[in-house]
Amino acid sequence: MTVTHAPNGTGTDAGPATAVGPEALVERLRSQATRYHSEHDFHVRMNAGELSPEQIRGWVANRFCYQEAIPRKDAAILGNCPDREIRKRWIRRITDHDGTDTTEGGIEAWLRLGEACGVPRHEMEDGRHIVPGVRFAVDAYVTFARTRPWVEAVASSLTELFAPGLMAERLAAFEKHYTWIDQAGLDYFRNRLHQAPRDSEHALEIVKEHCRTVESQESAVAALAFKNDVLWSMMDAIDKAYPS
Amino acid sequence: MTVTHAPNGTGTDAGPATAVGPEALVERLRSQATRYHSEHDFHVRMNAGELSPEQIRGWVANRFCYQEAIPRKDAAILGNCPDREIRKRWIRRITDHDGTDTTEGGIEAWLRLGEACGVPRHEMEDGRHIVPGVRFAVDAYVTFARTRPWVEAVASSLTELFAPGLMAERLAAFEKHYTWIDQAGLDYFRNRLHQAPRDSEHALEIVKEHCRTVESQESAVAALAFKNDVLWSMMDAIDKAYPS
Repeated sequence: MTVTHAPNGTGTDAGPATAVGPEALVERLRSQATRYHSEHDFHVRMNAGELSPEQIRGWVANRFCYQEAIPRKDAAILGNCPDREIRKRWIRRITDHDGTDTTEGGIEAWLRLGEACGVPRHEMEDGRHIVPGVRFAVDAYVTFARTRPWVEAVASSLTELFAPGLMAERLAAFEKHYTWIDQAGLDYFRNRLHQAPRDSEHALEIVKEHCRTVESQESAVAALAFKNDVLWSMMDAIDKAYPS
Repeated sequence: MTVTHAPNGTGTDAGPATAVGPEALVERLRSQATRYHSEHDFHVRMNAGELSPEQIRGWVANRFCYQEAIPRKDAAILGNCPDREIRKRWIRRITDHDGTDTTEGGIEAWLRLGEACGVPRHEMEDGRHIVPGVRFAVDAYVTFARTRPWVEAVASSLTELFAPGLMAERLAAFEKHYTWIDQAGLDYFRNRLHQAPRDSEHALEIVKEHCRTVESQESAVAALAFKNDVLWSMMDAIDKAYPS
């Protein structure tokens, strides 16, 4: 198999020598869509209906490592953010994934996706299927959110700009090609279709407001490139572990 | 003025050589009430009605540094906690302080307390009155929550076991002695009367469940002693900055 769009890693995207306006910054961030993991060969084959049940199950079980880490990543951002108004909006991401007393969260929805694909819940929760490359990439993301300035961590979340396209394509692919999966298990993808745009809009507002110097704009671009690397690296590890 | 109950610092409280049962652990934690900052001379004088308006204002403005840090402290715990069910309960602490779209939080309530005492809101928010000793103590608490194992950070929150007594006494004292303060400004204290017991009950559950070895029990006791030191040290710094 061929990896057609390997990311270049952070910091190699030579930017302008002076700060740009907010919309030009948004354009520069959006242009990183070409490095998004939707371009990874494993995803291309997934959406073309070419993956075996074992490959789908391997992907679902490994991706759970990422899903489960999201609330801790967002809580780390919250813990570093001194702006109460931003915290009051950002906290929604945590309840979206963890759920509340009255609403099911994304983690539970992913567990149900796994069950629909034939991975028992306890096998996802105990992490037995997770390969080291996936765990390292996820840990790198949580560590980034814990240790980098909170605005950079916000910028790193902007892969959500690119997520709805992949989600819509994946949903259609699963409904068409993977009919052995109980379609009720696809709620996670359906929910993210509207959650991701709402979240990325807020993150973009923050980055536009806070990144007005060339240094902070470079850091935002690098943070998003880093995040693309995290997602890409996970797909590489999954691809290796579940070859065709 | 005399400081009657200086805390001994962490780790000097020689505990049993073997793990104790959950209830004995709770007793040991509760016994640290004698080191709680309610015993600090500044609080004793506050509750006896002996503080000047300037001293009350100095305390309110400095204590805001702590209030404002609480959601970041709790988000740090959330960010380190791998247990989704615990996170779903713990997150309530953040909204209690930050507020939501429809509810006022404790930080806003404290700002209104400050205004009722005659400290303009912007003077609290810009931190101009905060003395270094207070800031260092608060930073130490947030750093503890970020960097120590999450169960220890939970244990450090257990000063809330001792808070309702102080809150009730303070509320009565403010209503009786400090009639120059608009009583509507005392909502923060009223809210904490029921929030603190609910929070400390959850924290105790966690500590009883997770601290079953002698090492983890010692760590929990030390974490609570550390937190008492944080609060006591803040009072020392405030006492020094606003002498009688």
